Amino acid sequence: MSASGREMKWWGWGDPDRPSELPEHALEFLRAEVGVGEERRAVALEDAELGDPALAARARDALAAAVGAANVRDDRRTRVLHAAGKSYPDLVRQRAGHCEKAPDAVVFPGSHDEVRAVLEACAAERVAVVPFGGGTSVVGGVEPIRESFGALIALDLGRLDGLAGLDEDSLTAVLEPGLRGPEAEALLNARGYTLGHFPQSYEYASIGGYVATRSAGQASTGYGRIDELVLGLRCATPAGDLDLPAQPASAAGPGLRDLVVGSEGVFGVITQASLEVHPLPRRTVYEGWFFRSWAEGTQALRSLEQLGAAPDVARLSDEEETRLSLAMAGRTGLKARLGDVYLRARRYAGGCLAITGWEGTEEDVPVRRARGGDVLRRAGALSLGRSPGRAWAAQRYAGPYLRDALLDHGVFVETLETATSWSNLERLYEAVRSALRDTLGARDTPPLVMCHVSHLYPSGASLYFTWLARQQAGEELEQWRAAKTAACDAITTHGGTLTHHHAVGRDHAPWMRAEVGVTGLAALRAVKDELDPRGIMNPGKLLPAGGAERS
Amino acid sequence: MSASGREMKWWGWGDPDRPSELPEHALEFLRAEVGVGEERRAVALEDAELGDPALAARARDALAAAVGAANVRDDRRTRVLHAAGKSYPDLVRQRAGHCEKAPDAVVFPGSHDEVRAVLEACAAERVAVVPFGGGTSVVGGVEPIRESFGALIALDLGRLDGLAGLDEDSLTAVLEPGLRGPEAEALLNARGYTLGHFPQSYEYASIGGYVATRSAGQASTGYGRIDELVLGLRCATPAGDLDLPAQPASAAGPGLRDLVVGSEGVFGVITQASLEVHPLPRRTVYEGWFFRSWAEGTQALRSLEQLGAAPDVARLSDEEETRLSLAMAGRTGLKARLGDVYLRARRYAGGCLAITGWEGTEEDVPVRRARGGDVLRRAGALSLGRSPGRAWAAQRYAGPYLRDALLDHGVFVETLETATSWSNLERLYEAVRSALRDTLGARDTPPLVMCHVSHLYPSGASLYFTWLARQQAGEELEQWRAAKTAACDAITTHGGTLTHHHAVGRDHAPWMRAEVGVTGLAALRAVKDELDPRGIMNPGKLLPAGGAERS
Repeated sequence: MSASGREMKWWGWGDPDRPSELPEHALEFLRAEVGVGEERRAVALEDAELGDPALAARARDALAAAVGAANVRDDRRTRVLHAAGKSYPDLVRQRAGHCEKAPDAVVFPGSHDEVRAVLEACAAERVAVVPFGGGTSVVGGVEPIRESFGALIALDLGRLDGLAGLDEDSLTAVLEPGLRGPEAEALLNARGYTLGHFPQSYEYASIGGYVATRSAGQASTGYGRIDELVLGLRCATPAGDLDLPAQPASAAGPGLRDLVVGSEGVFGVITQASLEVHPLPRRTVYEGWFFRSWAEGTQALRSLEQLGAAPDVARLSDEEETRLSLAMAGRTGLKARLGDVYLRARRYAGGCLAITGWEGTEEDVPVRRARGGDVLRRAGALSLGRSPGRAWAAQRYAGPYLRDALLDHGVFVETLETATSWSNLERLYEAVRSALRDTLGARDTPPLVMCHVSHLYPSGASLYFTWLARQQAGEELEQWRAAKTAACDAITTHGGTLTHHHAVGRDHAPWMRAEVGVTGLAALRAVKDELDPRGIMNPGKLLPAGGAERS
Repeated sequence: MSASGREMKWWGWGDPDRPSELPEHALEFLRAEVGVGEERRAVALEDAELGDPALAARARDALAAAVGAANVRDDRRTRVLHAAGKSYPDLVRQRAGHCEKAPDAVVFPGSHDEVRAVLEACAAERVAVVPFGGGTSVVGGVEPIRESFGALIALDLGRLDGLAGLDEDSLTAVLEPGLRGPEAEALLNARGYTLGHFPQSYEYASIGGYVATRSAGQASTGYGRIDELVLGLRCATPAGDLDLPAQPASAAGPGLRDLVVGSEGVFGVITQASLEVHPLPRRTVYEGWFFRSWAEGTQALRSLEQLGAAPDVARLSDEEETRLSLAMAGRTGLKARLGDVYLRARRYAGGCLAITGWEGTEEDVPVRRARGGDVLRRAGALSLGRSPGRAWAAQRYAGPYLRDALLDHGVFVETLETATSWSNLERLYEAVRSALRDTLGARDTPPLVMCHVSHLYPSGASLYFTWLARQQAGEELEQWRAAKTAACDAITTHGGTLTHHHAVGRDHAPWMRAEVGVTGLAALRAVKDELDPRGIMNPGKLLPAGGAERS
């Protein structure tokens, strides 16, 4: 059992019944480009290593009193399913059966008051609490880190899965944190609305997770990031409830909503969020474009955004990502569909693929699309029509499945993302690529480094990097750490933000000092100490432990 | 000397050389509506009461060492000019010559490092610091409150008045805090850009003040509130510098920029802000509309905003404000210009005046204006053409001058503002009007209460109330306090936010608990204690003192 009842593979991504195999042509491409390793599968659940639950009887009784005995579970399956998120190191460890850190119990509260009661019990009994929504963190955000605590629980919010309110005049919905993306959309769609929030983790990520991690979705250029959609919040902290009712705007002091948004469970547990919703789009068009170069493409997206002509989805792959996309799609895929276009316009060969998506009313979409298309064409784009758009839309949530298939074949695959100003985009892009190439090259596993822009702002854009390399068997985590460290150092020393939408979790915490400075960290720690005086909330996340800070 | 060298009347608003007299027809209207009192003028500067500066020699020497002796001033004129902001109680006291609380000295730092040095000196010497930008606060934001400190300085940021950077690719400017609205616009306009931020206080308000108070301007429906324009910040706090470089977006933890925006000087001093700018509009059109009723008008504005067809300026006066505007404009003003329209369309008589403003390129403005006009007409609006728009634009910063003229004639005039969801707008509107009418009616000074909507959001809108009443001579402050208390109680118990853009200052601090709750206040106090451990920064503002909290 996990949030919304849909269980993920305990060792990988998504639906346990959905196969994820690499087609032979993709494997061939990988062999030629980066090399593949021995084929390896995850161990069986029965063989995963984990110790006995360490929860003291008194603590267990207190939790049972808080939520009912049936909602405190410590069976092997439930614990293993809450032992990790879905980062690369998580998958490496889980596939190998390393679940020693699994929580001692998983607690399923059914209401805000039950969350409060759990926090009180855990504070009294000195039990660490890891809030658990969809469990999709790729930065160690739900890693069970005990620090000095003798026991740790995962607080699974899956039972808090309601649409608690819908204000149609004000286009505002009150959603509970355990609702996952598709379930939230189903409830809203039935009333004629959408949240418009579609991260790649959408199929499993939760509303609480979106808010706690400052999530952005594939259509956030149009609908806005989650931090722009949050109007109000309810958050249970060990020190008391933070109740911030929905307001369109306010000048009543600092932005407390913005202090909770992105707090990643270290202050407390978000138990309700009031979010802007939009009328369900009546028309959606996704389409493809080709640019002669990355520079041409980024300039075109900048124009689109700064002229107020941006689409809802805007995505530009660099040359490497474009090449890989076409290769992985195979003969029956995108490449074949683009064939004649290629022939017609060979000047674009080796260029960059872009996707634009327009969502809205029957009247608005054609108008906006025509205007955006004009800007793109004037900026050098070649229209590929809707076929690449449809292909992208069909695969928009498939990436994480592919990762499992790559791991089966000993391929190191990882992503990270940042954002910066338009004027700094190229410099940051080159710095991160060089850092990854140099670091992994030096380990004799030269990578294929790819990048795309996927979120546009008037002042800048996001950069999303993916890399593939041959896995160093037996040194997977060292290899990962070297690459991650080099990339994060490059980002923070070249004007990028540490993360645009993956959040901080455990993996990025050492760079928070570089991101917000000593004084910024001190302010965050002061809030933490006030709201969570015993430090039970999600230890080891967001705020670097002493000595773990970089620069 | 004050910020940017332009000095305001020490006892009122704006240019000391600009006369502000009420025309006879306006006075007649007021006599009939609310009654007027004895004509009274402000005392002469020489007659203002203030004590000798209380700054100890050692503290004065430390400040002189920090900024140079010439930049530590304690002459009568300078102290009186920094003795108050521009709230109604401020004006009542200043006009009567009550300047006893004037700062002991006014310090003019010339750089971030000098600001740091001043804060260090003040922390060491236990001197309270009131950051002072334009000095235009209408909520007691710059009131010199000593609390337990023996001395207090105003920290005038007027020398920090540069455009420190302009990134034309990223549409981002780095502005210093002492720049006032017109000077900031002049620097940006010369380069082809605008900040697009035009609060009624624009002629004197400063960039630092905008950011510290979460300001909104008359065109913020189009350009965004200041909190939406801030990309990066530099803030000197007694505990160290907060350096938050400009980023288009980030998921690296809670929003620290949003913690500084709206902090009203209680954590530290904003010494630089990176703000989004826009290309200078090539075309601007302001025009007028009439609605049959307030309800019809608010529905029309909601449609405009939710259909994505909102203008940059959107303002709807209720029946009372419309009636007053027409009466005050007189025979040669708006009323005359609307005369024939009235005759043509008497069904609109007694209705509500609205102004829409469109700013942008030659191509965009006609398209957006046509679309917005369609929405408004379908919603029942009668077009009045550009004449009322021009009249509004010509008078957009005149309100505060009028206030001085009203005070000359013994008229109590005050404003306050809030925001709420569209679904709650009518309820809140009625609650605040009733509170003001009941409270002032009970004092035998029945008010004329007016309201306008001036900022649109998908989920709601602002409400800006103005009231006029006969001043209770000798009890001006008690009368004010009764009205203010009733209105703020009504706002916080009827779903409004305490303030939409005036900020908290001293006057709203007692309601901060109602606004953000006990836990929210505790979080803010924790940040305050961390960044300003000796409590020297702007005492008595934003955070209520113990015992001063309401509900």
